[in-house]
Amino acid sequence: MLKTVRIFLFILALMAATVPAGGAGAAEPRVSEATENCLACHTAATPGIVADWKKSRHAQVSPAEALKKDRLSRRVSTEKIPEPLAGSVVGCAECHTLTPAAHPDTFDHEGEQVHVVVTPGNCAVCHPEEAGQYERSKMSWAQKNLADNQLYNDLIQAVVGIYSVKADGLSLQPAGAKDQADSCYACHGTVVKVTGTVVRETDQGDLEFPVLDGWPNQGVGRVNPDGSKGSCASCHTRHQFSIKTARQPYTCSQCHKGPDVPAYKIYSVSKHGNIFSTHKDEWDFEAAPWTVGRDFTAPTCAACHVSLIVDEEGETVAERTHQMNDRLPWRLFGLVYAHPQPKSPDTTVIRNKAGLPLPTELTGQPAAEFLIDEKEQARRTERLQKVCLSCHSHGWVEGHWALWENTIQTANAQTLAATQLILKAWDRGAAQGPAQGDSPFNEALERKWVEQWLFYANSTRLASAMDGTDYGVFAEGRWHMAKNLVEMSDWLKFHLKTKK
Amino acid sequence: MLKTVRIFLFILALMAATVPAGGAGAAEPRVSEATENCLACHTAATPGIVADWKKSRHAQVSPAEALKKDRLSRRVSTEKIPEPLAGSVVGCAECHTLTPAAHPDTFDHEGEQVHVVVTPGNCAVCHPEEAGQYERSKMSWAQKNLADNQLYNDLIQAVVGIYSVKADGLSLQPAGAKDQADSCYACHGTVVKVTGTVVRETDQGDLEFPVLDGWPNQGVGRVNPDGSKGSCASCHTRHQFSIKTARQPYTCSQCHKGPDVPAYKIYSVSKHGNIFSTHKDEWDFEAAPWTVGRDFTAPTCAACHVSLIVDEEGETVAERTHQMNDRLPWRLFGLVYAHPQPKSPDTTVIRNKAGLPLPTELTGQPAAEFLIDEKEQARRTERLQKVCLSCHSHGWVEGHWALWENTIQTANAQTLAATQLILKAWDRGAAQGPAQGDSPFNEALERKWVEQWLFYANSTRLASAMDGTDYGVFAEGRWHMAKNLVEMSDWLKFHLKTKK
Amino acid sequence: MLKTVRIFLFILALMAATVPAGGAGAAEPRVSEATENCLACHTAATPGIVADWKKSRHAQVSPAEALKKDRLSRRVSTEKIPEPLAGSVVGCAECHTLTPAAHPDTFDHEGEQVHVVVTPGNCAVCHPEEAGQYERSKMSWAQKNLADNQLYNDLIQAVVGIYSVKADGLSLQPAGAKDQADSCYACHGTVVKVTGTVVRETDQGDLEFPVLDGWPNQGVGRVNPDGSKGSCASCHTRHQFSIKTARQPYTCSQCHKGPDVPAYKIYSVSKHGNIFSTHKDEWDFEAAPWTVGRDFTAPTCAACHVSLIVDEEGETVAERTHQMNDRLPWRLFGLVYAHPQPKSPDTTVIRNKAGLPLPTELTGQPAAEFLIDEKEQARRTERLQKVCLSCHSHGWVEGHWALWENTIQTANAQTLAATQLILKAWDRGAAQGPAQGDSPFNEALERKWVEQWLFYANSTRLASAMDGTDYGVFAEGRWHMAKNLVEMSDWLKFHLKTKK
Repeated sequence: MLKTVRIFLFILALMAATVPAGGAGAAEPRVSEATENCLACHTAATPGIVADWKKSRHAQVSPAEALKKDRLSRRVSTEKIPEPLAGSVVGCAECHTLTPAAHPDTFDHEGEQVHVVVTPGNCAVCHPEEAGQYERSKMSWAQKNLADNQLYNDLIQAVVGIYSVKADGLSLQPAGAKDQADSCYACHGTVVKVTGTVVRETDQGDLEFPVLDGWPNQGVGRVNPDGSKGSCASCHTRHQFSIKTARQPYTCSQCHKGPDVPAYKIYSVSKHGNIFSTHKDEWDFEAAPWTVGRDFTAPTCAACHVSLIVDEEGETVAERTHQMNDRLPWRLFGLVYAHPQPKSPDTTVIRNKAGLPLPTELTGQPAAEFLIDEKEQARRTERLQKVCLSCHSHGWVEGHWALWENTIQTANAQTLAATQLILKAWDRGAAQGPAQGDSPFNEALERKWVEQWLFYANSTRLASAMDGTDYGVFAEGRWHMAKNLVEMSDWLKFHLKTKK
Repeated sequence: MLKTVRIFLFILALMAATVPAGGAGAAEPRVSEATENCLACHTAATPGIVADWKKSRHAQVSPAEALKKDRLSRRVSTEKIPEPLAGSVVGCAECHTLTPAAHPDTFDHEGEQVHVVVTPGNCAVCHPEEAGQYERSKMSWAQKNLADNQLYNDLIQAVVGIYSVKADGLSLQPAGAKDQADSCYACHGTVVKVTGTVVRETDQGDLEFPVLDGWPNQGVGRVNPDGSKGSCASCHTRHQFSIKTARQPYTCSQCHKGPDVPAYKIYSVSKHGNIFSTHKDEWDFEAAPWTVGRDFTAPTCAACHVSLIVDEEGETVAERTHQMNDRLPWRLFGLVYAHPQPKSPDTTVIRNKAGLPLPTELTGQPAAEFLIDEKEQARRTERLQKVCLSCHSHGWVEGHWALWENTIQTANAQTLAATQLILKAWDRGAAQGPAQGDSPFNEALERKWVEQWLFYANSTRLASAMDGTDYGVFAEGRWHMAKNLVEMSDWLKFHLKTKK
Repeated sequence: MLKTVRIFLFILALMAATVPAGGAGAAEPRVSEATENCLACHTAATPGIVADWKKSRHAQVSPAEALKKDRLSRRVSTEKIPEPLAGSVVGCAECHTLTPAAHPDTFDHEGEQVHVVVTPGNCAVCHPEEAGQYERSKMSWAQKNLADNQLYNDLIQAVVGIYSVKADGLSLQPAGAKDQADSCYACHGTVVKVTGTVVRETDQGDLEFPVLDGWPNQGVGRVNPDGSKGSCASCHTRHQFSIKTARQPYTCSQCHKGPDVPAYKIYSVSKHGNIFSTHKDEWDFEAAPWTVGRDFTAPTCAACHVSLIVDEEGETVAERTHQMNDRLPWRLFGLVYAHPQPKSPDTTVIRNKAGLPLPTELTGQPAAEFLIDEKEQARRTERLQKVCLSCHSHGWVEGHWALWENTIQTANAQTLAATQLILKAWDRGAAQGPAQGDSPFNEALERKWVEQWLFYANSTRLASAMDGTDYGVFAEGRWHMAKNLVEMSDWLKFHLKTKK
């Protein structure tokens, strides 16, 4: 009822005022001539993209207008937009023809120098702070951190390698680029390279296009033809680039749904997720800054980890960050144990004391020199807790933290038990590990060990962190840690006995 | 803001016009006398159905009005509605008393000849094209294709058969009709038959009703008392019959949620699903035709597989079809390998070279004479890709296709490895297969083999097809294909060794 | 279109009337002075809570106004509100300073006697019937029923106990309070106790707060500092306490999502869940009473189990109850078999004939004297079926019931088979059970037995009950019951053979 009254009053107010065209209340921003050229064909050629883009803020507001907002409300982080771009809305040409020389995938397309893959460097013209933050995030390094780590490559092959049956058992052949691109690197990002050109028949006659290897891909650490890392469109989905999309948990669910990182599944059945699912239709996902309690009444992934949050009086609760671990003291993702966040987003530099490219020893101790120290952990804890404290008392938050940090230790302990069993298996010859020149991840017992830390311990810790606690009991958590240990132990006993 | 302005302008327009009663802007369509009779009691007897129906288009528009729309916007596919039906809205009597003699479940009910089960033949009076398409769909044959295939019956009993413990091990007794109806045939459809009558006390005194066996059931291939196959209400849910329901993925999720066909789960965590979940409140799910980019900005299941899609200029992107595989070159559902779609919706006619009622050999070769050829695959690929190309470039679509078709081969190869192990087990006597006169699906190793193709290979292929790629890695995909193979191989080695 | 017309007519009507301030159409309810004091600091200290509360009915309506509604629409169940509370809206002070002497967690806070944990006794001032019903619900006993049952404690330790590796195998140490609070008792509820005080720096200077053990916790059976049981906020989430939250299935999903009680997952992929997910934006989740067909067109968890439902003519379909099993003849949750609901919400009194604190014998017979009899089952069946009959015919409902009750028996039978195997294992020394002084839940075979009834039989029964039938086949149901039995039987055969 109140809402209808408000709509009515608003209509009356509008009647008194003159309603200018365009959404931004200023002189109508213009679509650039270059973009008009694109639209001339693409309205028919790719109607979905064009219609989607028309709904975007990019299609309605020029960077010059965007700059006029006050600091907290501003959605561009540069202080100055280069002249040819400032006055037009952000259309096809503004992004796809920007700095053509820098983009090896640039091609001559109906008189324009167009590149296919828009990269963070393009976005940084208007959003340099966000691009800079993202460069310091492990996410933009996700391709390299996986590809340039020999141990992780062993794991990849244990997951996607191709088995065939030989007379004496199975033979594992490495998976090719396509299988890897269609699995691990779908999220981590592929290396996108121009490999040639192709001529296609189109409504405009025969046209030549570049052929890209590693394409399509929307991974967060995609290595672009210009050498840049990451894809803003992974979360700010084309071509509406809606902040509403990025702020809802469905975006994160694309890669964080489990069982290795079941953040989305856990959120869904948490109290926060419950409130989101029920009340999101009453929330304002477009507002910048994002006002806690008014625009939203429970955090989404973005609220805790990324967004600029203020209270109703305009006080900042959390600064915007696209370095996703900026508010995270712990890295819950076990490799093979949970540990303090790495110092550098480039995790390929990490070596534990045993010389392995892992942030912890196989026996649990953190590779401390490569990880943030307690002071930095405290700083990040404080940032994250400020978000919690918007709605929860200190007692509540401290109590939650105590449960969570205890659970981190418990899940690490249950990983240690599994690791001791696998070490014993390697030592006694019941399985072939690195010391025997073999992958530590591909045999039956080794695979149970992988599930212990990658699935069950991770799930247990995440369920605790996000208070979707029930998930960490039977779904993929504590029950499975315990059951898996018993089965590993029985397996090992049996194989050591029969070996004698 | 713009939305409110639009509402306001719309209100002004309405003030100038005369608002006629009824939603369709024409003379108010009338509820037939027969339906008024139904409503007289049923408004109290089954208030939920009646209130639900009142919200339906059926309750607001008469077929005669529906016929006036232009071809693309028309929701009825007949050219002529029989006279007594044309002028009234589509109410209880219009469907439940239609052609009573054809329906063995017709009974005398307060002076009307009413049948319980409304069948596709009834719907076809106004929607004959859709009914015809659906008849050519495997879905309408889902009951028969399962029930009349001996091998599939073996699988049913391996799933729902009742085990009891005997002195020397387990004994498996076939599950009865109720257990089958409450499992496999819930989706595939039961055979609904009149078995007698029952007298019930009602507010209107004692009344006699037919007793139906196999009822209730909403399976897509339900065999109705009139002998017809399928249920339109499986997707066009009673009694609102809303196109909005059919177009959202939740409808498909009822039977396609996994682990055998996890289409819904995969869609949910795909980019398309992300956009749907976030933006569906801004979409128009009622519009016919459905305009890509304007009415919706990402496909749902219906967009790719069923709906009539146009672009903003009214050009048809895809014709409506209720033959669900009309845009599908491949059948990803492995039996036991993925293969080209069958030619006939009646798959009971299929025999592979080995004489088994399977569309592939156990060693992977397609039973080609029963499957569509490459030309037809190309036609269906083109139809499906036209939907993709609304929003994606040719390079994008081709790249996606290359990944997907590679993944089909990979998952088939991992199915072949598992099949070679089970063939060896049958050959060496470590398990009892068809050659030994036993079900190929019920022993421990056989069940691991079933999971290889039915769960893991299917999940891997679907995850690739719908770009919910992460799902195909750890959730129920490649990791499990690999782990399962290692465990099968170890099991077999051990049992062959102990056998000696 | 109709909606906009309705909005417009409504606006016209509003123009004619005088719109009073406040949402309730009466003199503006006032915020009490005590609550104003709270808000003075907490608007800045915990902005999210305050903003959330402002959106609540509590913040807009005083109890005196709430009492004026007719019986069916009334949201308070008392006949008389104590004077100091009646005239103000329900703010911070109204709940957190109520009966301070009864609350051991009361502390002096800026001149007010504030307690942290608002308990059902506080809510009962306005909502005594609901509090009384909830007291008779097993849910409010969930902490005690778990903690005071030795057998269930064995299960807890099999789930959350900490394993370490010793020379001769694994050693299981009991989990501490934190691990238990962060797993089983997260849903069942912790015991919350004051253990001391702490001084914190705040914007108002140093302030002293109580320290609570077992806090935070939102479990349904939480034992509060005042000795009361349960938390209304488990479902009526703070601080909006919205009936919309409680009526949507997301609330129940927090604890009922599987694999032990996958009610939410099953609902999601049922026809009812499909309709909810698609059409909930058209429903009225705030209306009291809740009118079937008009306010909602498919049941949510609350509709079947809790809510006051009426039809459009105001006839009551179901009375409101917060005794959640008031409409439930069967307890599907197997312990270890499904059985009639217990008579008393205190299930610690139950002993089966074998002396175990279980509602069934290990061989399946119900511990009848502690369970409701057939007459009471019939009463509850009638209450539940009245909800079904709002939208379904008697034939439909009876057919569904017949399938469901058959499936209860089938799942019980497959639990019996597994239990016979485990009894044999205990008898023959292949595992150590209660007779050997050991937990029946912690060894490898025992854990498979647990999964048989706790995961697979429960899932099968729930999937049948809620007509999310497909879920009960491959997801976590019949396939897994069968496969698990075969694996258990093979394991046992092998271990009995090698033992010889």
